[in-house]
Amino acid sequence: MVPIISIVGKSDSGKTTFIEKLIAELNRRGYSVATIKHDTHGFEIDREGKDTWRHAQAGALSVIISSRDKLALIKRVEQELSLDDLSRLIEGVDLILTEGYKRANKPKIEVLRTQLDPEPLCSKTDNLLALVVDKIDIDEGIKAGVGVPCFYWDDVAGVADYIEKKYLGTLDSKPQVELRVDSVDIPLTPFVQSIIERTIRGMISSLKGLTGQGRIEIKIF
Amino acid sequence: MVPIISIVGKSDSGKTTFIEKLIAELNRRGYSVATIKHDTHGFEIDREGKDTWRHAQAGALSVIISSRDKLALIKRVEQELSLDDLSRLIEGVDLILTEGYKRANKPKIEVLRTQLDPEPLCSKTDNLLALVVDKIDIDEGIKAGVGVPCFYWDDVAGVADYIEKKYLGTLDSKPQVELRVDSVDIPLTPFVQSIIERTIRGMISSLKGLTGQGRIEIKIF
Repeated sequence: MVPIISIVGKSDSGKTTFIEKLIAELNRRGYSVATIKHDTHGFEIDREGKDTWRHAQAGALSVIISSRDKLALIKRVEQELSLDDLSRLIEGVDLILTEGYKRANKPKIEVLRTQLDPEPLCSKTDNLLALVVDKIDIDEGIKAGVGVPCFYWDDVAGVADYIEKKYLGTLDSKPQVELRVDSVDIPLTPFVQSIIERTIRGMISSLKGLTGQGRIEIKIF
Repeated sequence: MVPIISIVGKSDSGKTTFIEKLIAELNRRGYSVATIKHDTHGFEIDREGKDTWRHAQAGALSVIISSRDKLALIKRVEQELSLDDLSRLIEGVDLILTEGYKRANKPKIEVLRTQLDPEPLCSKTDNLLALVVDKIDIDEGIKAGVGVPCFYWDDVAGVADYIEKKYLGTLDSKPQVELRVDSVDIPLTPFVQSIIERTIRGMISSLKGLTGQGRIEIKIF
């Protein structure tokens, strides 16, 4: 699983601006990033009258528009998807940042604009990793109270260092085998992963034209 | 794999209108449908200044916005994705209709507005399933020339019958095991599918708390 970190904060605290800077800094270091934004108002993204809009209006559950350089998917859901479910739509990135999702159980960085409201939204028990604050004097108090590292608003490099060390340096230890049964992730010990991996690679290698190497995906219905 | 049928036709032939009617008819029969539209012009779907737009501008490769009733994913790609790759972003539908994709190798239904241009875009060798035409007299000629069933413009029920019989009644015979190696689909005979399925289900059933039943997905990196 790609690591997911939520950037949370009250309204107008500057979450989007901070995420923009953090993405740019992580890109500069060679990491690719995806984002997930939580919407509470009911967003409208497609434009009335467009073909894709007409498909959706006619009753299509999912609508994709695809071109040479990008694609867009709009999908109706029965209930809001979890971050883990959403992250399955994303491939080929090193890190997923979310804007919002303070109630999800992902590690969080809170952007705190003390001039607006000095009280953080999250505490350490909310899986809070760090605070990003706008003022140094209030910061010391928060630091004492919340017990997580504090970074100043413009210290994007400091936050990137922290994320890199804590989440991106450990990519080597990610599981080599992922197993889902009826859409539930099953945790596997390294030993069991090794048994499953070797059995499947061995079986695949007996098929004509295949070596059993490379990235393997199997779905059984 | 969910069946994919491409609705093709020249500009202004009425593809989108026909797709709208077909989706509604298939929904009425209890089938859920997704659509994929091919864009050649470079579409713009997100709105300048929105948070998700800002994430993408800052360098995020994929951006998702998610709410209670829908989600949208916008993803940058290095090259245009194939219909098979795009279809992997879609779950829980019985059929995928595409608008366009005349060069892809999927079964096609061509919408032909003979008043504009009596010459079909596709022939039987393009995997053409049927023609949908606006006029009966020209139709007979086309029918003779192209050698596929013809439906009149307003006979959406006839086209739905045809699709239902040919693609939706045969869902039982879809493969039970799908294998991808390095993002390439590997065709498997029923015999090999059975060996892989039994081996993996047996192995999984030896894990604590699991029976080996249900839908299983495995990724090996």
